[in-house]
Amino acid sequence: MPSRSADDDPRLGDISEGTVLRAILARTAPAAHTLIGPGDDAAVLAAPSGSVVATTDTLVHGPDFRLAWSSGYDLGWKAAAVNLADIAAMGARPTGLLVALAVPRDMRLSFVEQLSDGFRAACEALAPGCSVIGGDLTVSDVLTIAVTALGDLDGRTAVTRAGARPGDVVALAGELGLAAHGLAVLFGRFRDGDTPVPVEAAKLAAGERAAVSAQLRPSPPIGLGPVAAHAGATAMMDVSDGLTLDAGRMAAASDVTIDLHRGALGENPERALAGGEDHALLATFPSDVLPPGFRVIGIVRERAADGVLCDGEPVDAAGWDPYRDWDAAAG
Amino acid sequence: MPSRSADDDPRLGDISEGTVLRAILARTAPAAHTLIGPGDDAAVLAAPSGSVVATTDTLVHGPDFRLAWSSGYDLGWKAAAVNLADIAAMGARPTGLLVALAVPRDMRLSFVEQLSDGFRAACEALAPGCSVIGGDLTVSDVLTIAVTALGDLDGRTAVTRAGARPGDVVALAGELGLAAHGLAVLFGRFRDGDTPVPVEAAKLAAGERAAVSAQLRPSPPIGLGPVAAHAGATAMMDVSDGLTLDAGRMAAASDVTIDLHRGALGENPERALAGGEDHALLATFPSDVLPPGFRVIGIVRERAADGVLCDGEPVDAAGWDPYRDWDAAAG
Repeated sequence: MPSRSADDDPRLGDISEGTVLRAILARTAPAAHTLIGPGDDAAVLAAPSGSVVATTDTLVHGPDFRLAWSSGYDLGWKAAAVNLADIAAMGARPTGLLVALAVPRDMRLSFVEQLSDGFRAACEALAPGCSVIGGDLTVSDVLTIAVTALGDLDGRTAVTRAGARPGDVVALAGELGLAAHGLAVLFGRFRDGDTPVPVEAAKLAAGERAAVSAQLRPSPPIGLGPVAAHAGATAMMDVSDGLTLDAGRMAAASDVTIDLHRGALGENPERALAGGEDHALLATFPSDVLPPGFRVIGIVRERAADGVLCDGEPVDAAGWDPYRDWDAAAG
Repeated sequence: MPSRSADDDPRLGDISEGTVLRAILARTAPAAHTLIGPGDDAAVLAAPSGSVVATTDTLVHGPDFRLAWSSGYDLGWKAAAVNLADIAAMGARPTGLLVALAVPRDMRLSFVEQLSDGFRAACEALAPGCSVIGGDLTVSDVLTIAVTALGDLDGRTAVTRAGARPGDVVALAGELGLAAHGLAVLFGRFRDGDTPVPVEAAKLAAGERAAVSAQLRPSPPIGLGPVAAHAGATAMMDVSDGLTLDAGRMAAASDVTIDLHRGALGENPERALAGGEDHALLATFPSDVLPPGFRVIGIVRERAADGVLCDGEPVDAAGWDPYRDWDAAAG
């Protein structure tokens, strides 16, 4: 799709809802599983397994993103990716997204078009066959992107957080701490006082560039969710709030203790333990199973006083709150 | 559930997300179709037909509601009802809701509990078997309630807007103009200057009370959507933006003209034609079919210059924009 010139880029408050919706839908063509796409009262999506996996996650301007750092494309991509990861974490294949946008009147049509391109690109890259099947557009003073993702289990049983058993291996697919590194770069290098300023690529080293990209446009291994389920994963979840916190949730749900191997957590184990937003897939498997794409990072033990250990020692369970000291009013 | 006293009603910004979610989930127990409920990465919902009907609709503080007029219970009820209506309008039976809440930090826990009670009550009253199956909670300066509803067709084909044929009868189930009357009462009687003030029941005549209730807690005939589909409805939609505008959409999708009978539109045909937000079901049927609960309000004709007529005459296609002259900043 061509991008808009400045004089052909109306503010959303000056054009009809129908015009905006047409612009979105022109960029988010329904894919394989869509039996009835956008435009009627509701969409109809294939659910060949006789069940549907469903999740919703919202990005709010302020707590969740800064427009100085994220383009519309980035936000569409990220809003799709974080929801796709929740579908994958059940062992399901994403089949459709519903997008509820609440957008300030003074934002430009091109921004919504970029958002749409981001949704589409993330689906094509991370979950082929999944597409935007419906949505809603409202006006709000706070840009809010609420996405619902739907998926199909292809006849498999859903993999919850509750099935890990002592003796299982703990495995991971995807990044740990990279998105947190990216956010640290943004906080440290691209602010003027407390106000975020746009990222200049020339100021970034190669490693920093990958980290910032992981923060703004995460690419969780969506396709490996069904692979893990097919291989016999006993429990699975995506790591959104940091490995320590999320492994603790899995341990609690399964009534086990998860003992992580520090040597398997990469160059910066502290960041790997605490950093969120990578949406890696954390799974447990019988000890003789490890599907391609997963690496062993620990072992499941009988439940002990601590739900999470690292090389047998307790770890600080502090989660990941990237905006802990961050003023929600700016940027 | 007991309600909270003032000194046991924390602000949402002062308590953990987990505390809020537990309070919500205690009030929205999963119903029949929920295979895996809230608490994991995603929910799993039965989709026995092999497809799922899905829609999303958002209420934003300012454009869509005023807290002086709507309680948390009202808003939960309305956010559920308007989404259930979109599922019913496809001829489907609602099976689950996902609720994405973005809530200001200074709102009280009791407000979210009331919202939850409203979701649950609306499901129980309007769509038994449907329940909240998942959700998301974020912080925002603008209270935003994005609901996704899912439904099942029970093996039927979805009824779109596109199937009306010349000679079909045009029929309606539900109210026309009552919610608009209610909003007119609110605008006319419960404002101090431009600022909305709470509704005092004692100031309302019986008819006004029903109208205000229809505006704040609409009760569309959700169960009649599947009934219409089973009876052979050729087209169906819910009337959210006013009969003239929505019938025009159905006429355009079906490439027909819809000729309404003014005498069938009640005491105030102008309000019935223009007033939105009742979420009545508008359907077309073969001329020898009229399921219980529906009344004839017109006939489908070959496509003419105007998509909508009333007793053969063109009608003003102006839609329903309740807040056209309403300052979005107050209330």
